Amino acid sequence: MQMKELSAIVDKKLDEYLKISYPEDIFKSMKYTVLLPGKRLRPVMCIESARMFGADLEDVLPAACAIEMLHAQTLIHDDLPCMDNDDFRRGKPSNHKVFSEAIAVLAGDALLTFAPQIILKNSKNLGSEKLVRIMEEYFQAAGAYGVIAGQVVDIENEHRQNEGENLSAEEQEKILHYLHLHKTGDLFRLAVRTGAIIGGADEKSIEALTVFAEKFGIAFQIADDILDETADFEEIGKTPGKDKISGKLTYTSLYGMEKARKDLNLLLDECEKILQDNRLKTDIFSEILRKVRK
Amino acid sequence: MQMKELSAIVDKKLDEYLKISYPEDIFKSMKYTVLLPGKRLRPVMCIESARMFGADLEDVLPAACAIEMLHAQTLIHDDLPCMDNDDFRRGKPSNHKVFSEAIAVLAGDALLTFAPQIILKNSKNLGSEKLVRIMEEYFQAAGAYGVIAGQVVDIENEHRQNEGENLSAEEQEKILHYLHLHKTGDLFRLAVRTGAIIGGADEKSIEALTVFAEKFGIAFQIADDILDETADFEEIGKTPGKDKISGKLTYTSLYGMEKARKDLNLLLDECEKILQDNRLKTDIFSEILRKVRK
Repeated sequence: MQMKELSAIVDKKLDEYLKISYPEDIFKSMKYTVLLPGKRLRPVMCIESARMFGADLEDVLPAACAIEMLHAQTLIHDDLPCMDNDDFRRGKPSNHKVFSEAIAVLAGDALLTFAPQIILKNSKNLGSEKLVRIMEEYFQAAGAYGVIAGQVVDIENEHRQNEGENLSAEEQEKILHYLHLHKTGDLFRLAVRTGAIIGGADEKSIEALTVFAEKFGIAFQIADDILDETADFEEIGKTPGKDKISGKLTYTSLYGMEKARKDLNLLLDECEKILQDNRLKTDIFSEILRKVRK
Repeated sequence: MQMKELSAIVDKKLDEYLKISYPEDIFKSMKYTVLLPGKRLRPVMCIESARMFGADLEDVLPAACAIEMLHAQTLIHDDLPCMDNDDFRRGKPSNHKVFSEAIAVLAGDALLTFAPQIILKNSKNLGSEKLVRIMEEYFQAAGAYGVIAGQVVDIENEHRQNEGENLSAEEQEKILHYLHLHKTGDLFRLAVRTGAIIGGADEKSIEALTVFAEKFGIAFQIADDILDETADFEEIGKTPGKDKISGKLTYTSLYGMEKARKDLNLLLDECEKILQDNRLKTDIFSEILRKVRK
């Protein structure tokens, strides 16, 4: 199976899980952002990490979809006027532009608990012990020790830069690494770890996939920073150059374009090597790594 | 033990669970609203519902505290400018007034997953099966089928009233019942059901406690609506009369003060009777019912 087929299966399942019921606006709002066109990288990586250990597609689909819902949750709240204030996402108006700020806040809240609810409802055959472990992974990634920590450091740093505070290059490096690791990396980490747990992987493989995902997360964010400076609206589906203007710390602003490209490809090489060395390489993982290269 | 002692134990434990770590602002913000002075009604009801079936206090404390954290989450997001826009809560400035809107949104998000994480981390001895059942209850109450559904209907109705839309008395009654049941009732429902599950209660008792909590939730909200019209800032810790001004549908606006008082006390009588008939009456439950009478 190719990535395209897998992501189509994920889309179909997401649509199925997100049934519109009363009060309709909240479900419509949740569904709107979750189903914006995307590559479904995180669910695909979750599925691959389960299937390589012999799991059935059906057993991992609920968790894979839940991770995409969590991802959508972070997008909805990050785009809010009080946060990054983005009017567009994946080429369409942001959630709060279509619905309202109030509904966007609530849709994000709802997705945070709807996602793990989908796992519990549809993965009974995994057994309670695995389910508890998956819940632990989910809370760790979704919460104040995970993506939220990354977002907090991101907005607080932006605020400090706009106040004219001067940070040393060393401090900026540390902050940038922290926010890439959490804001971006934690969802990839969650995806591969959850998949591997569902597949019944040994601890050594789970550890290898975790290191892989952390490196991949940083690579992915560097690629995103490069695109923010070089691509147009069509390509990235949001206003380009916004990070630079709003004083956000990015890999390209800190190291320049040339080093960003070089480091990105070095990281992707390391990712390939980890998979290779641990016999975790699959066609789809290779395809994903190829897609992120610049 | 009296209610006061129990709520002091809950406060101590909440303080313990909410350790300030990096990035500090998010933990400070979470802790700020969770630890605002309050009666800790929901955790106390959770604890009572477990202890009456023989559970140890230690076994139910994590879940009791988690429910208070979830309650705080709803307060933080409800107070946001895009929602009910309240500057005060429990006599102190609202979360977004002390921190910022961005941090308040993120603190609410963080509490939503921190709360169940506290349960999983500290209740290992309940066993995986009970933990999964508690998670299911939590997601049901916290999400789009629970408190969020109530909040959505509340703000959408307020919006309609402000647009001058005329609803029949019958429609208004239906909406009011729905939002009391979910916005207020679902957390009480969660509290007693979670406690009873931890205590190993039989299904009949769980069902009786559920009906009790639903009625109690409505009674509690009627009492809150009465206070909003009759009490001053000192008593309720937020701007009084605000619901009326902002066009919110309340029990007193729909039925008048006299009927509100009468219905409140009738509901509390029914609550007492349910507990009595099912041999679920405890001193603390009686104390709680007494406190809500007007």
